[in-house]
Amino acid sequence: MKKVLLLVLLIFLVEPVLGQEKRHQEQIEKIYNAALTDGKSYNWLDFLSNQIGGRLSGSLNAERAVEWGEKELQSLALDRVYLEDVMVPKWVRGTFEYASIITGPGMSTNVPVCALGGSIATPTAGLRAQVVEVKSFEDLEELGEDQVRGKFVFYNRAMPQNLINTFEAYSKTVDQRSSGAARAARMGAVGVIVRSMNLRLDDYPHTGNMRYGDLPNKMRIPAAAISTNGAQLLSSMLSLNKELYFYLKQDCKNYPDVPSHNVIGELRGSTHPEEIIVVGGHLDSWDLGDGSHDDGAGIVQSMEVLNLFKKLNYQPKRTIRVVLYMNEENGLRGGTTYAQNAKANNETHIFALESDSGGFTPRGFSFEATPEQFQKIESWADYFKPYLADRFTLGGSGADIGPLRNGNTVLSGLRPDSQRYFDFHHAANDTFDAINKRELELGAAAMTSLIYLVDQYGF
Amino acid sequence: MKKVLLLVLLIFLVEPVLGQEKRHQEQIEKIYNAALTDGKSYNWLDFLSNQIGGRLSGSLNAERAVEWGEKELQSLALDRVYLEDVMVPKWVRGTFEYASIITGPGMSTNVPVCALGGSIATPTAGLRAQVVEVKSFEDLEELGEDQVRGKFVFYNRAMPQNLINTFEAYSKTVDQRSSGAARAARMGAVGVIVRSMNLRLDDYPHTGNMRYGDLPNKMRIPAAAISTNGAQLLSSMLSLNKELYFYLKQDCKNYPDVPSHNVIGELRGSTHPEEIIVVGGHLDSWDLGDGSHDDGAGIVQSMEVLNLFKKLNYQPKRTIRVVLYMNEENGLRGGTTYAQNAKANNETHIFALESDSGGFTPRGFSFEATPEQFQKIESWADYFKPYLADRFTLGGSGADIGPLRNGNTVLSGLRPDSQRYFDFHHAANDTFDAINKRELELGAAAMTSLIYLVDQYGF
Repeated sequence: MKKVLLLVLLIFLVEPVLGQEKRHQEQIEKIYNAALTDGKSYNWLDFLSNQIGGRLSGSLNAERAVEWGEKELQSLALDRVYLEDVMVPKWVRGTFEYASIITGPGMSTNVPVCALGGSIATPTAGLRAQVVEVKSFEDLEELGEDQVRGKFVFYNRAMPQNLINTFEAYSKTVDQRSSGAARAARMGAVGVIVRSMNLRLDDYPHTGNMRYGDLPNKMRIPAAAISTNGAQLLSSMLSLNKELYFYLKQDCKNYPDVPSHNVIGELRGSTHPEEIIVVGGHLDSWDLGDGSHDDGAGIVQSMEVLNLFKKLNYQPKRTIRVVLYMNEENGLRGGTTYAQNAKANNETHIFALESDSGGFTPRGFSFEATPEQFQKIESWADYFKPYLADRFTLGGSGADIGPLRNGNTVLSGLRPDSQRYFDFHHAANDTFDAINKRELELGAAAMTSLIYLVDQYGF
Repeated sequence: MKKVLLLVLLIFLVEPVLGQEKRHQEQIEKIYNAALTDGKSYNWLDFLSNQIGGRLSGSLNAERAVEWGEKELQSLALDRVYLEDVMVPKWVRGTFEYASIITGPGMSTNVPVCALGGSIATPTAGLRAQVVEVKSFEDLEELGEDQVRGKFVFYNRAMPQNLINTFEAYSKTVDQRSSGAARAARMGAVGVIVRSMNLRLDDYPHTGNMRYGDLPNKMRIPAAAISTNGAQLLSSMLSLNKELYFYLKQDCKNYPDVPSHNVIGELRGSTHPEEIIVVGGHLDSWDLGDGSHDDGAGIVQSMEVLNLFKKLNYQPKRTIRVVLYMNEENGLRGGTTYAQNAKANNETHIFALESDSGGFTPRGFSFEATPEQFQKIESWADYFKPYLADRFTLGGSGADIGPLRNGNTVLSGLRPDSQRYFDFHHAANDTFDAINKRELELGAAAMTSLIYLVDQYGF
């Protein structure tokens, strides 16, 4: 009899939890099934990539992308779709970029280059100078002004191959691109050539943002990326002949800021509408490819979260907002503006998720959270095991949602497999054909499942 | 004093284990570093794919691959490199394969097809007949002989999109390809058209093995795969017009068996040379592409295991053998012969590992093992965590090593990310450009690390 009582007690205590678990498992299975068999993300990305294309902040294409995003979100019959005004930088690549290695009269070899975003142009006739190769800022300091003055500084530190997370390899080399020109200019260099942030050897130059900081205008020098094959060639030719010349011509230009927009769609919460959950990516991209992985993938995956909730007739408890941020690549104005307005409007954001690491097979999520918050999150990992997306770690989330960081709002980033990301990042081959439909959809399903659990439990 | 004694005791007990763990971690780190910065797998695969190419059993290319494998293994200065005689089937695709959908006089649409491996040819003038579409053998039975006689049977069951492991989706549809012709022939069909085992919609027909079983020669009918786009088109045209005709012409042919070889290389164990550890893949491939993923990747990853051991001056305790199996695709003669000879020679195989799931990012390994054996294996998973390859499961291993199954030998398969595998499997686009260098190398590193641990601990 005692045993029976105990059993009854146990059932009363355990059943609700088990019942809840089962309900969540079933909901997540529905989400995955819908994403993989009846989702919109792939077709959305096809349009954004192939019919709009590269969409650098301040460009006509960026405005076309804003219009498209607004229209598509409206078609989902959300509770609210609106634009948020953002002033963005405008930098234009211009009509040509060209470089060659000159070893003697009539002896030159063309190499693939592209201007770095934010760089000034060369003189109209181009820039011709000798080259010093360095692997680091320490190398540069060691050379001293005498060796650097009047020359190109060639930053040739390769991304380390032995790191499993390729974003770590990126973080160990990207300083060359972002501040290499300012450092070299202060030592009298006339221009910088930066090895592309790419783990492969190929012929694509990879652009990306660079900053002159507080360097006076008259001291600013042109900065270009060179393909990894080009960098290997230049380095080996320099080892044979340190006196060779490099020729660079580019006519990019910075313009005054122009108006643009974040695109926002919202499903209003039924029981806690004041608690806001954000999911997003960035709508702008670099101009060389069509930005399919960076970050068209994150855009359509974020839109898919709301699409799947609508499709599955899921009525969220909390307010769920998709934000298509403008200007992640060269200013972060969209993310900054969104956070400023959220603060000014006294909004409470409990969670923000960003997808900006490519449309590859999701392995899990990273979180910026307190130990208590992370403990709760970790208890959800088992729901993601059947989908092989259960790797939950503490770590950085995403650039656009960074400005929401306040020690209380949980920030998270989708973490897809990172091996191929830098094959395409900021280069002309970041195009729709590099997207695998299932990998993209699995990311959208994982994101929707996480947002679902956050909506169910809150923080 | 008691506490000090206890501490000393603890150190004596725990230190060797911790020291050992650290040693293994360091060795595995060395393996990964070497694989990612100084490995041979990618260049080997470049040669095998681009300079040899598709290598169907019995073909000249298969023999060129045998010679290449032997030569490359010899270059590693192993303790022994040898060939093992295997008789293999010989099937030849012939010079043309061609199909069209005919809806009326002068109204025909070409569709991409390829003969299934083992199929007979059509009559020289081709085969023209009406079509019945089915999704399953149950559908076929339901139609009955009256509906089937004199027609093509069109098997159009698509791989299910909602399964996360695409090999499961494959196993749910491949019966159409392997035994569809025999089933349809017994009901009087004149030929079969099988939807390609491909999760994407595209224009590549995917070949693969089919068997007539004990069907008498005179009853055998031609079997061809149709691309997924072609299958969609045929299905929608049939829904408009059930009387349409399908035309198929192919001149493939079966020949008598011919001699070929497994290629074997061996590092002899220093303390337990009689305990053999096998690592391998299959050297043969289908003939449409160059077999880079299926299974050139597995071949070069397996060779890399011995290369990395030599490079790192690792002297194994047990005998480690790389086996490049011949004829996995259409006969499994290499795997069968290897196991027969191993038995005849009273060899003791403690472990066999196969890589035959594509050269994609490794997620972990599957094992055929007893509970005790698997417990031991699971204790090693933490070594693979930093490399994101720690998903250890019970499950199938690989076709070539299957014949070694005896309830004692542990069998294992590398489990890479499976999302893209069937985009390329058995099709003309399974080529070297679909290989990512780092993903391939990570697989080789994971395999080498597992073989290292098996060598250290045995079973």
